[in-house]
Amino acid sequence: MSDNQKIYVVGHKNPDTDSICSAICYAELKNKITGEAHEAKRAGNVNEETQYVLDYFGVKAPVFLENAENEKVILVDHNEMTQTVDGVKNAEIMEVIDHHKIGDISTDVPIYFRNQPVGCTATIIYQMYQENNQEVTKEIAGMLCSAIISDTLMFRSPTCTPVDKEIALKLAEIAGINVEEYAVAMFKAGSNLADKTPEEIFYQDFKKFNVGDVNFGVGQISSMATDELFEIADRLKPYIAKACEEQGLDMIFFMLTDILEESTNLIYAGAKAGEFVEKAYGVPCEEGDYYKLAGVVSRKKQLIPAFMAALQ
Amino acid sequence: MSDNQKIYVVGHKNPDTDSICSAICYAELKNKITGEAHEAKRAGNVNEETQYVLDYFGVKAPVFLENAENEKVILVDHNEMTQTVDGVKNAEIMEVIDHHKIGDISTDVPIYFRNQPVGCTATIIYQMYQENNQEVTKEIAGMLCSAIISDTLMFRSPTCTPVDKEIALKLAEIAGINVEEYAVAMFKAGSNLADKTPEEIFYQDFKKFNVGDVNFGVGQISSMATDELFEIADRLKPYIAKACEEQGLDMIFFMLTDILEESTNLIYAGAKAGEFVEKAYGVPCEEGDYYKLAGVVSRKKQLIPAFMAALQ
Repeated sequence: MSDNQKIYVVGHKNPDTDSICSAICYAELKNKITGEAHEAKRAGNVNEETQYVLDYFGVKAPVFLENAENEKVILVDHNEMTQTVDGVKNAEIMEVIDHHKIGDISTDVPIYFRNQPVGCTATIIYQMYQENNQEVTKEIAGMLCSAIISDTLMFRSPTCTPVDKEIALKLAEIAGINVEEYAVAMFKAGSNLADKTPEEIFYQDFKKFNVGDVNFGVGQISSMATDELFEIADRLKPYIAKACEEQGLDMIFFMLTDILEESTNLIYAGAKAGEFVEKAYGVPCEEGDYYKLAGVVSRKKQLIPAFMAALQ
Repeated sequence: MSDNQKIYVVGHKNPDTDSICSAICYAELKNKITGEAHEAKRAGNVNEETQYVLDYFGVKAPVFLENAENEKVILVDHNEMTQTVDGVKNAEIMEVIDHHKIGDISTDVPIYFRNQPVGCTATIIYQMYQENNQEVTKEIAGMLCSAIISDTLMFRSPTCTPVDKEIALKLAEIAGINVEEYAVAMFKAGSNLADKTPEEIFYQDFKKFNVGDVNFGVGQISSMATDELFEIADRLKPYIAKACEEQGLDMIFFMLTDILEESTNLIYAGAKAGEFVEKAYGVPCEEGDYYKLAGVVSRKKQLIPAFMAALQ
């Protein structure tokens, strides 16, 4: 690793809008305020929701980073080894900017690690623009605002804090968008699933977790159309059973989240997965082999903490 | 855990001046800016350097927290399970404010975790007073300034950043102290060892680390008097051999750091400890059975990273 080596800013695998947009915007901020060269990278394919955002604001997607070995990296929007780009174990982690539970990243030397319990990494990135007195352009505002709308399901998720909403509304003004209209179009682009294979839908937003000796994965798709969610469930079920086996996971869950109804239908794979959901939530299996989790829309703030508690 | 339960702010075991003073000052800040009740606690005895600071500014030492089980805690100045108060595994960690390498704290939910690569936690606490527009009283300034002088060996340690020094000088003005004179008196109080048992000296500043299946501990004492350090070395040697065995550690190291000469004499215990130092530093064992590490004064920034590299 040379000292003038470029520093890559990268979000989690199966990147969502926050992971892509926060990486782009933070790399730009770091380039403005430091003497070092930073470049945003992506740890997977850009999904259709994110592509809509990038197209809308005329921004090019970051280049794919296949392996981070021997690179210098700043991790945004995650701090779990299971979610990070391959090779990070042998990379130099320079910083972590995130808004999730504290995971298992460790370093040999002190670094800047900033995790805030807010709804979106983009909220923190905006605060850092402010703290460093840097101008937020229309494009930066648009990307950060989109990430907040996406992560908070347009302020409906319990992960959303007053700070997220306040910042998103400020950013919407700079970006020149009407939040409600823009959100509908953006979510629609993201749940445009007719042409997709189950595999493509599955990997749009899938994260792995490890607790003790239990390895499990949780995917999620959010939609404003209830009917569509049932149709997707039917198409995904055989696929997640296969994925669970192929990836050697104990359990896989997939959250089909209804944004308007603020609830989730949970499908699952793995021998003990059904029993586990019943333990965590105390709800029965519905006809059609899924669990209805009323009021649950957030993987991070609702599902994962309930699962962690049930695993302990 | 009830919702109006007091939140304890606590530093690491074998607390140093930063762990005690940052806990007191951060608890006070949190009481000012939140509706919740916070109280500083200590995870071990107050050492003589810290007692000098508290006496100088007329501040009472925090109460000892023997076990954090079922408590709500904010951890300052550490983020390693081996260094934290007993029972934290079953406590609710609300925040972490630190300036060390990223360790092994994990949580079930998102929390505020702020780690900055600066010389002292107190530097970060001062920044938080500024960010929240809170007055820094003479007592708060004195404690934070003392912690910075202590952790950075009066700005001589490589862990010291320009920000630490700038903030310490500002704080010294508010506290009404002359940094050089105050530092000499403070360090002298801390290395006033004539009346102490080897055990007392050893536990003034001792931390445990775990890498893979290797468990080791590193203690440190800093002094402005070279002769004194040799005398302490002779008294400590039999004790660390005993401590290593009793605590079931693979290796123990003790840094006898000469602040003026900016070097460390390293004594050790454990079957493979000597060989290990030679691997990490490529220096021979000196007559009198210690290793001379020229230029090494910081456990955090110099010794631990070199040890981590040698262990991998």
